[in-house]
This record gives sequence, C-alpha cells and structure tokens, in this order.
Amino acid sequence: MSDTGTNNIEISRRRLLGTVGAAGATGLVLGAAGGAGVRAAVADEPATALTTVGSAAESFHGDHQAGITTATQSRGHLIAFDLAHGAGLKEAVALMRRWSATASRLMAGEPAGDGDTGVALDAGPSLLTITFGFGRTFFDRTGLAAQRPAELDPLPAFSSDQLDPRRSNGDLWVQIGANDALVAFHALRAIQKDAGEAARVRWQMNGFNRSPGATAQPMTARNLMGQIDGTRNPKPSEPDFDRRIFVPATGQPAWMAGGSYAVVRRIRMLLDDWEQLSLTQQERVIGRRKSDGAPLTGGSETTELDLDRTGPDGKLIIPDNAHARISAPEQNGGAAMLRRPYSFHDGIAGDGTPDAGLLFICWQADPLKGFVPVQRKLDRGDALSTFIRHEASGLFAVPGGPRKGEYVGQRLLES
Amino acid sequence: MSDTGTNNIEISRRRLLGTVGAAGATGLVLGAAGGAGVRAAVADEPATALTTVGSAAESFHGDHQAGITTATQSRGHLIAFDLAHGAGLKEAVALMRRWSATASRLMAGEPAGDGDTGVALDAGPSLLTITFGFGRTFFDRTGLAAQRPAELDPLPAFSSDQLDPRRSNGDLWVQIGANDALVAFHALRAIQKDAGEAARVRWQMNGFNRSPGATAQPMTARNLMGQIDGTRNPKPSEPDFDRRIFVPATGQPAWMAGGSYAVVRRIRMLLDDWEQLSLTQQERVIGRRKSDGAPLTGGSETTELDLDRTGPDGKLIIPDNAHARISAPEQNGGAAMLRRPYSFHDGIAGDGTPDAGLLFICWQADPLKGFVPVQRKLDRGDALSTFIRHEASGLFAVPGGPRKGEYVGQRLLES
Repeated sequence: MSDTGTNNIEISRRRLLGTVGAAGATGLVLGAAGGAGVRAAVADEPATALTTVGSAAESFHGDHQAGITTATQSRGHLIAFDLAHGAGLKEAVALMRRWSATASRLMAGEPAGDGDTGVALDAGPSLLTITFGFGRTFFDRTGLAAQRPAELDPLPAFSSDQLDPRRSNGDLWVQIGANDALVAFHALRAIQKDAGEAARVRWQMNGFNRSPGATAQPMTARNLMGQIDGTRNPKPSEPDFDRRIFVPATGQPAWMAGGSYAVVRRIRMLLDDWEQLSLTQQERVIGRRKSDGAPLTGGSETTELDLDRTGPDGKLIIPDNAHARISAPEQNGGAAMLRRPYSFHDGIAGDGTPDAGLLFICWQADPLKGFVPVQRKLDRGDALSTFIRHEASGLFAVPGGPRKGEYVGQRLLES
Repeated sequence: MSDTGTNNIEISRRRLLGTVGAAGATGLVLGAAGGAGVRAAVADEPATALTTVGSAAESFHGDHQAGITTATQSRGHLIAFDLAHGAGLKEAVALMRRWSATASRLMAGEPAGDGDTGVALDAGPSLLTITFGFGRTFFDRTGLAAQRPAELDPLPAFSSDQLDPRRSNGDLWVQIGANDALVAFHALRAIQKDAGEAARVRWQMNGFNRSPGATAQPMTARNLMGQIDGTRNPKPSEPDFDRRIFVPATGQPAWMAGGSYAVVRRIRMLLDDWEQLSLTQQERVIGRRKSDGAPLTGGSETTELDLDRTGPDGKLIIPDNAHARISAPEQNGGAAMLRRPYSFHDGIAGDGTPDAGLLFICWQADPLKGFVPVQRKLDRGDALSTFIRHEASGLFAVPGGPRKGEYVGQRLLES
C-alpha cells in the first residue's frame, strides 16, 4: 500500500450512519437557507450533530501505522513506558499483543473489552489513532540489541537543549490522537491498563490542535505564537514522500519496512517574551507574514522564499537568521521530515510564565536526513531560538503497520 | 430577556459564511451518497469544512452573561486573579472596561486589538464565551464592602474537602469556553494581557468536554469515570429555570439583577481506584446504569428514580448511599443548580496517579438553595465520596450581562 490514503477505511455501523445522516440532512437545511448565519445551541436546544467528526476512522492495519499521515487531530496524548524490572522479551511480546488488540478495537469505535471504562461510549471513533514505537533502550532489555537500528543512535546534543531526562526517551512510546478529548482519554487509560505489571509510565504529555470545522476551509495549522506552522511539510502526493518518510520494503533492519522514525521534542515557547515583540519584529524572526504565512518577499503562503532579495536599505528582506530561511529544505540539502505536532498548555509554571508550547513530532525514514541536519542549523543561528526552549526529547523506531492477524512489532519481536 | 436563547446572535461575516456554505454543500454530497460511510482525511487531502463549529457565536450583551446557558464547549479555561497591591476601585473599573471590550471583540470573532497574538486567526468565534465574576475578597479591596452579597459568605467546610487555598477563590474569576482549543487559548492570553499591572494570576485551570459531532446525536455528557453526568440538570425551557439560576430583576443587591452565583470545585477522580471496581459495583455507587444512565430501577436516562423499590433480597435496588439518590432534587427540598462542568486531565501526579477529574462549575440564584444543601447531603453519605477528592473551591458573584455600551460589573462599580 504505497498510497497512504488507503490506510483509511469506510465504516458503516448503525450509530455512525446516524451521524452521517444528520450531517446530510442539516447540510440540506443550511443549503436551503442560502448561507445565512447560524444560531448557537443553548443548553436545552442542542444543535443537531452536523459533522463527521465522530464517524471518521483510521484502519489499524496497513503498510504504515496510523497516526503518521493521518490529519492531525484536535486532541493528543503522548506516553512513554519503561519495561518493568525483570520484564523482558516474553513480557514485551504479550504487551504488544494486548496493545494491538486494544488499538484495533478502539480505532474501530469498539469498547476495549472487559472492564472498559465507558468514557468513549456514545461517541464514534473520532479519527482515533494509536501509534507505537520502540526506544533505544528497548532492545537491550529484550535481548534484541542485534536488531537495533543505527537510526536510534542518540541524537546529538544541541547547544540550546535544556532536556529533562525524566521526560525524555523511554523503552516504549505511544502516540494517541482523536478529534474528541474523551475518546482520546479513554484510549490513554486503556493503554495504561494494558501495561499492567509489564511496563511503568515514564512520562506523559497532553496536546491539542485546531478543531475540524473551526476554520472556513482547511488551513495550515497555527501554533501558540500565532504563526502558520507547517507550510513546507512534504505532502503524501509528492513523488518522493514515501522515500523520505518511510523505511522502504528493502530497508534495514528488515523489521522496520514500512516504518518511520519519530523525533519528539517538548518545545516550550517563552510567550511572555515573544508577545512583547511588535508584529514587525515577530515577522522578521520568522521570515513570514503572520496574517497569511506568506514570505516577507511577497506572494502567498505557498510562494517560495526569495532568499536573496534585498530591500531599499540593501539588507536581506528575509533576515539571515530568520527561522524560515534556516529551516528551508533548500538550505539543508533537501532534508525533509513530516512535522505533525500538537500544541501543549499545562497551565502556569512555578515562575508564573505559561507552561505552553509545541509537542513537536516529526517523522522521517532517517533522522540524520531529517530532524538532525535541520536542528543543527537552527541551533547555530535561528532568531527564534531566543523564544523557545527544548525541554524534553525522544527518538523512537515506529515499525510498519501490522497486517491482518499481526500485532505491532511482531516482525521484530519474533525475528 | 427571559428567553436565554435570545442571547445567541446571528453572524454573517464573509469568512463565516464560507463555513456555512461548505457545510451545506458537503451535506448535500453526503445526502446524495445515501448515508454511506465517510473517508477520513489524509494530510494532503484535508476534509472540506463540514461544520458550524467555527461560525457559532454568542452575544456579549444580554440579560445574562454568556457561558451559563451556552452549550458546554469542548475546551475551557478557568482563571482567577487578585488585584495587585495598591490597586483599588479605579484600577478595577479600568480593568473591567478593558476585559469587556476584549470579550466583546473576541466573542464576535474579531482580533483583541493592537498586539493581538494571532493565535485565533483563520478560525471563527467557535462559540467562544468569556464570563466574569467577583469573589468575596474583591469587595473589601475596592471599598465596596457594603455592596457585597450575603450569597458570597464562605461556603461551609465539608468533611471530605482537601482544599488547596492557593488554587481556591480569588478577587476576580474568568471562565473561558470555546469549541476550538486555539480560540480558547487566544482568549486566555488576551485576558491575561489586559490584566496588566492591575491584577495578578492567582490560579488557572484547563478543561475539556466532548467535541460537537463526536456523537451521532446530542447526548448528556459523560465524565472521566464513564458516567453520564447531568441528566437531572434543570432545562432553560422549564418554568422555574430563571428563578432558580438567575437573580431576579427585583433581587438584592440590585447590581446582581440577571446575575448568578458560580460555585467552582476542582474534583479529583481517583481513577486507579474507581477502575478497580466491577461494572456492577460502579453502578451501585452511582445508582444508574453506565451504558445509558437509566436508574437501576429501570427505564431510560430520563425515567425517575424509584427510590423505594426493593429487589428479591429485600434490599433497596438503588442503595441508600447511591450518588443519584443522595443528589436527587426531591431528596434535597428541590434544591437546584445548573451544572456546567469541564473535565480536566493534567497528566500524571507525583504519586503516579492520573491528575484528572471534573472542573465542577454550577450556577444558581443562591448557593444556599443550590450547591450547599446538596453537597452537605453528599458529604454525609455519598458512596462516590471514596473515589473523589475536592481539591479547590471558589464562589463568585457573576453579574448580569452588560447592555450595549455597558461593561461587565458597571452597575456594581459605579453604584
């Protein structure tokens, strides 16, 4: 399955059809009204369900795990586990079996099984994805060191890192996303319960993105600095997308065929400082207009940066240290990664500043051809670095999607 | 305006019309497909905006502030401030003017003004509400002690309270809700910025509810224990709704006409313990079925509890200490409050348990006829109390909605 679109499935269970039917009917009503304004719902007159938010679903099975090319969901949880003391390959196999069975059920909108908490009852799968990865330390603990990919070698240290090891790395990593916060929370609890005595939570983070339908048409996401973020992301329709993002069928190690490497960074935004800047100052830091993401050299969001153009003062219009310049693929030997982040906001930190920023997650066939070269460059001279702080880091090998009857990671664990 | 529905406005700005138009068109397509399943979006084929999520809006002006009878939004922020040292009535007036101007703009989907962070750009108002309240301590600090309502007398201590004073009460309280997390965050930052030197953040909490459209038809909410929660909420269509929830036009103090009192409790759920119970045990704690919220004595969610009915063993089917029995209005002299909570999940606490539960917010014309008698009763014998912990508490006087040209609280501050 080279077309990532085919990872999606059609579902037609009765409760989901209800949603689709409602959307159709309401659409007709709205259409007949000629586009007039809509009324908000009040407590005892709830709006008819208008959307396909609940009914959208991804398949658990496929060449690639879901949650990589899936449209970013409005709610996300990241959770890392370490195998428990004394647990090894046998426990890891049983755990991946349990997790795969649970993920398969939940992504189809079914209960997790006996003892389901009921938190997701009534809701559709809401585009739930549950994605599993292995950290560098997993391989020694399971006696699989010979199967450890070189791509999991530790990331280089960057001068701007202020990493908290307790919130970094981990033997196992799970990414959960859904367009309903209760569906996502339900999955998180089910995954934790499945861990049982085999694995202990190492760290856990919560994130969010824009809700489907909050904008009039789909837009590139904004981050909590207000910037359009992700314009240059590679698109699945581009011919070299698969090669850049996924390990090929002939790649090494063989168990990673169809897999991808995830780099995870908790990037705190120093919003109190950032928001002190004028709009012009902010735009010079980024190199793009805030309003529409267009390069400062003009055009629209998708116009290429004119990196050499100077203004009347003879200076570069997109400054030397502008984030967009330094991170541009053409400035990095074509290095490409698929960025698929969540924003985070964990209230107010001890020093009174907002504990908010970006749960940066990027996907690539090889971190040395994706995240690492770009981050090295940013680390040396990105104007944005004054306003962000990398607080945690993880690197995980995310195996290809399971075939029917397989569990995630089976080709590694039974190799 | 006694019809709370009239608080809603119709909006027809161009970018919002775009959303409505898209919803209509997509509805037609789905309708024509005869209710067949839908396809999830992939990264380069985003789904057409299907919904009115973005375009829904509440009016800032009206008899009551928005955010009380407004349908609960998928994302919420609560933030409490204390007036800064040396700040008094003059600073409070200026602050409420600034906040009102900002709330009015943001709720209409407009930028906050100069220095807007841009985080909400592209999105519609997404049913944003910003609701303001005054705590007991506000009145002394502004020289308005004579205007302080008796309803703001401290809540009684409850035996199960484990309240953190640093996360409780406050001079000023703001409730923000929106169906898009970035729109809500944008409003939170704008409100914080407006506070300037006049007020300092005392505490801040984040919450969430189900996304519109995640269920096939509108349902009573579930909480993170998986229980349907809010079945017995009074409905705006009920004849005594206004009398119970809002201070009447002839009420005292006069500046509270059209206002309401908000009781806020951070209720931690001890989910690791709760999830150890069997379904049957959980249902006996609550007195209702988990699947559909029906009383254990039968029927559907809205069927009345048969509190006297016994089973074959001669014991009450709805146990003596079941939560639904103890909190039933008929068991509490008709005490009624409008519960409008958000769930919260702040990751994992220091002891490894989930820091999750309910940001309980209830609204009533008089806390002594709403929250207090019910909580007193629950405090004495609710089976649920073993599984929850009240960690923070607030009580706020939320004045009526501003008329055109007024700011929130003007009738108090210029009294």
